Amino acid sequence: MSVTAASGFAAAGVVAGLKSSGARDLALVQNRGPLNAAAAVFTTNRCKANPVLWSEQVIQDGVVSAIVLNSGGANCYTGAQGFQTTHATAEAVATELGVSAGDVLVCSTGLIGEQLPLDVLLGGVSSAAAALAPDAGLGAAEAIMTTDTRPKQSEYRSPDGWTVGGMAKGAGMLAPGLATMLVVITTDAVLTSEQLDRALRSATRVTFDRLDSDGCMSTNDTVALLGSGASGVEPDESDFASALTAVCRDLAEQLQADAEGASHDISIEVLNARSEDDAVVVGRAVSRSNLFKAAIFGNDPNWGRVLAAVGTTDAEFDPYGIDVAINGVQVCTAGQPDQPRELVDLTPRKVHVLIDLHAGDETATILTNDLTHDYVHENSAYAS
Amino acid sequence: MSVTAASGFAAAGVVAGLKSSGARDLALVQNRGPLNAAAAVFTTNRCKANPVLWSEQVIQDGVVSAIVLNSGGANCYTGAQGFQTTHATAEAVATELGVSAGDVLVCSTGLIGEQLPLDVLLGGVSSAAAALAPDAGLGAAEAIMTTDTRPKQSEYRSPDGWTVGGMAKGAGMLAPGLATMLVVITTDAVLTSEQLDRALRSATRVTFDRLDSDGCMSTNDTVALLGSGASGVEPDESDFASALTAVCRDLAEQLQADAEGASHDISIEVLNARSEDDAVVVGRAVSRSNLFKAAIFGNDPNWGRVLAAVGTTDAEFDPYGIDVAINGVQVCTAGQPDQPRELVDLTPRKVHVLIDLHAGDETATILTNDLTHDYVHENSAYAS
Repeated sequence: MSVTAASGFAAAGVVAGLKSSGARDLALVQNRGPLNAAAAVFTTNRCKANPVLWSEQVIQDGVVSAIVLNSGGANCYTGAQGFQTTHATAEAVATELGVSAGDVLVCSTGLIGEQLPLDVLLGGVSSAAAALAPDAGLGAAEAIMTTDTRPKQSEYRSPDGWTVGGMAKGAGMLAPGLATMLVVITTDAVLTSEQLDRALRSATRVTFDRLDSDGCMSTNDTVALLGSGASGVEPDESDFASALTAVCRDLAEQLQADAEGASHDISIEVLNARSEDDAVVVGRAVSRSNLFKAAIFGNDPNWGRVLAAVGTTDAEFDPYGIDVAINGVQVCTAGQPDQPRELVDLTPRKVHVLIDLHAGDETATILTNDLTHDYVHENSAYAS
Repeated sequence: MSVTAASGFAAAGVVAGLKSSGARDLALVQNRGPLNAAAAVFTTNRCKANPVLWSEQVIQDGVVSAIVLNSGGANCYTGAQGFQTTHATAEAVATELGVSAGDVLVCSTGLIGEQLPLDVLLGGVSSAAAALAPDAGLGAAEAIMTTDTRPKQSEYRSPDGWTVGGMAKGAGMLAPGLATMLVVITTDAVLTSEQLDRALRSATRVTFDRLDSDGCMSTNDTVALLGSGASGVEPDESDFASALTAVCRDLAEQLQADAEGASHDISIEVLNARSEDDAVVVGRAVSRSNLFKAAIFGNDPNWGRVLAAVGTTDAEFDPYGIDVAINGVQVCTAGQPDQPRELVDLTPRKVHVLIDLHAGDETATILTNDLTHDYVHENSAYAS
C-alpha cells in the first residue's frame, strides 16, 4: 500500500525540524534498481519553485536514483540562494547514496517566499539516508503532509508479477495542470524512461489534471514515476498504463476527499461534448464557480449557477439545449426547469452533477469540492 | 444624485409583490425626450436571460423610450413562457406610456430557473407608470436591489449645462464582461445613439468590466444609457466620455464596497505590462485566486499567492523579475523577498496590491473583494 510496495525501492520519513509542530517533514525514496528509469511531470505555473527548476533538469535524461521531498517550506521565490539550497540538498543525497546529484529529484512544499534552513535540511537528509528501508513507505507518506489530515497511498499488484505503488500529498491549491500535489509513484516493471513518460502523461491527463479543488495552481507540483525493473517482468504497455491510471485516480480521489475544509466531494460529469477539451473546459468552469460551490455547501441544488458557469465558456453547445441533473434528479431539460429542485438530496458527501451538452459524443469528469466556512478559515488563519 | 438628475427623465420604484420581503421590486425609468437616443451593453455570458435576449433586439435601432427593471426573479432558463413574460411586460409599459414595445428595455434579477408571475409584474407596471415622477430616482434605485444593502446612485453635472446620472444594483456574481449588475444611466446631453454607444463602451471597458468580485459572470447583466437631449447642449464628446466614465467608476466602486460578505475592497494595480490586455489578464488572475482572497480576509499579506496566480497567465513577463507591494510595502523585488511581510497593515478595508511586471508600459487596475465567511454564508444559506 505504498511507495515501497514495488520491489527495488527503499524509503524513509524523518523529522528534520522544518515544521514547528515537530512532525515528520522530510522524505527520501531510493531506487535500488537494477534500472533507474524515470519520468516526471511538473506544474504548468510559470512561477516555478526552485526544486521544480532543478528537477526539470534532472529528469531530462530519464535517469533518477532518488527523490527527496520536504514539507515546511516551498523554496519558491527565494532567488539564487534558494536554488543553491535545492542543489545542496541533491548533492547531500547523492553523497549519502553514492549516486550523482544530477540523478536526484527534489520536491518542496509549504510557504512561498521564505528561505529553507539548509543545515536543518542537510541534517534531515543524513537521518533519512540512515533510515532507508524497503518497508518505510508510510513514514515517507507522512513526512510530505502539510494541511493533509491523513497520508495518501495506493498500490496495484499485477497478476503478471509487477507492482505499482504511490504516495501523494495535497489538500489546497488543488488545480489543473496538476494540483498542489507532490506524488511519487514507483514500479518494479521493466520499462524504459520513454515508456514511463508516455504512461505517466496519459494517466495524469485524466486524473490529477482533472482535479480542481479550488482553482488555484501551485508553484511546486510534481508527479514522479520511478521504475526499478526489479520484478524482471516486461508488462504489456497498455496494461501498465491502465494500472498506473488506476493508482493515479485513487490518489486523486484521496486528495479530493481530504481537500481543505471541504464538506462535499463533487464530480462534474460533462456528456456529449463536441470534443474532450470542450467537456473539460465546461466541467472546469463549473468547478471554479464560487457561487455554485457555496450553494452545494448549503445543500442548495442551484442549477442556475451551473448554467451561468457553463455559459462563460466557448465550448460548442446550444445554450438553451442543455440538460442538468444533480444526484440523479433531472432539474433542467433543454434549458428549462424540469423536476423540482426540492427532490435533490445533497446531504451525502458525494455529489454528482451531470451536464449534457447535446453537442457530440465526448465526455470528461472534473473532481472538485464545495466552498465552505472551513476552507475560508484554513486559508485565512494560517499562512501556507 | 440619481437616474432622474438629468432633465427629461421620470422614474418610479414600486412594490409589485415579487419579493417575499414586501420591499420595492419594480422600477421604471421613462425618457421624456425630446430625444430617445440610447445604447446598452449586456453580459457576455452565452446563457442569457430572457430580458437580455429581448433587450438586445430593442437596442438595435438605438431608440429607447423606457426601461423597466424587476428584482425577485431573473427570468433566465424559463423557456418560451419566460420570453413571453418579458414581451408582455414591455407591451404593458408601452401601452401605459403610449410608446412602442420595441422601444422598451427589460431587465430582471434574482433566482435562475423560476417563472416570474406575470399578473404580479403587470400590476407593478401599472403602479409604476402612475407613480412616474422627475424626482423619484431613489425609489427606483431601491427597487432594483437584491442582496445589496444600500441603493447605488451617482451623478455628474457639467459646467456646460448637461448632466449624467445613474443607478446600479449588484452585490454578488460580480465578474467581468460586466458583473451581476443592472445599471441605468441617463443624460440630457444632446448626443446620437452612436455617440452614446461609443462613450458607453469606452467607459464600461475600464470600469464595470474591471470589477471582479467573485469571478462569477451573471446571465442578466445590463448597462443602459439613455439620452433625452433635454439640456439642449451638445457636449464635447471626450468631455462626455470622461464624465460618463467617472459616473461608471463611482457606481463600480459602490458595487465593490457593497459586495456580498466582503470585509476588504482590493485594488489590484498591474504596472508596466507589455499591453493593457496583459495587465488586465494578470490582475484578473489574482482577483480570482481564492487562496489570495482568503489570505486578505485573514489580514495575511501572502504575496506568494499573488505570484502563484500571476504565473498561471500567458502575459509577457519574466517570472523572476516581478515586484509586488501590498499597501505600500514592497514585499517582493525581482522575485525575491524584500521587506518583511509583518510590516504590511491589512486592517483597513481598502487594500492596494501593486504588481510591477517590468515588461512594458501599460497598466490596468482590477477591483475585487476578499473571500470571507460571510460570502460563503450569504451564498450557501440563501438561493439567489
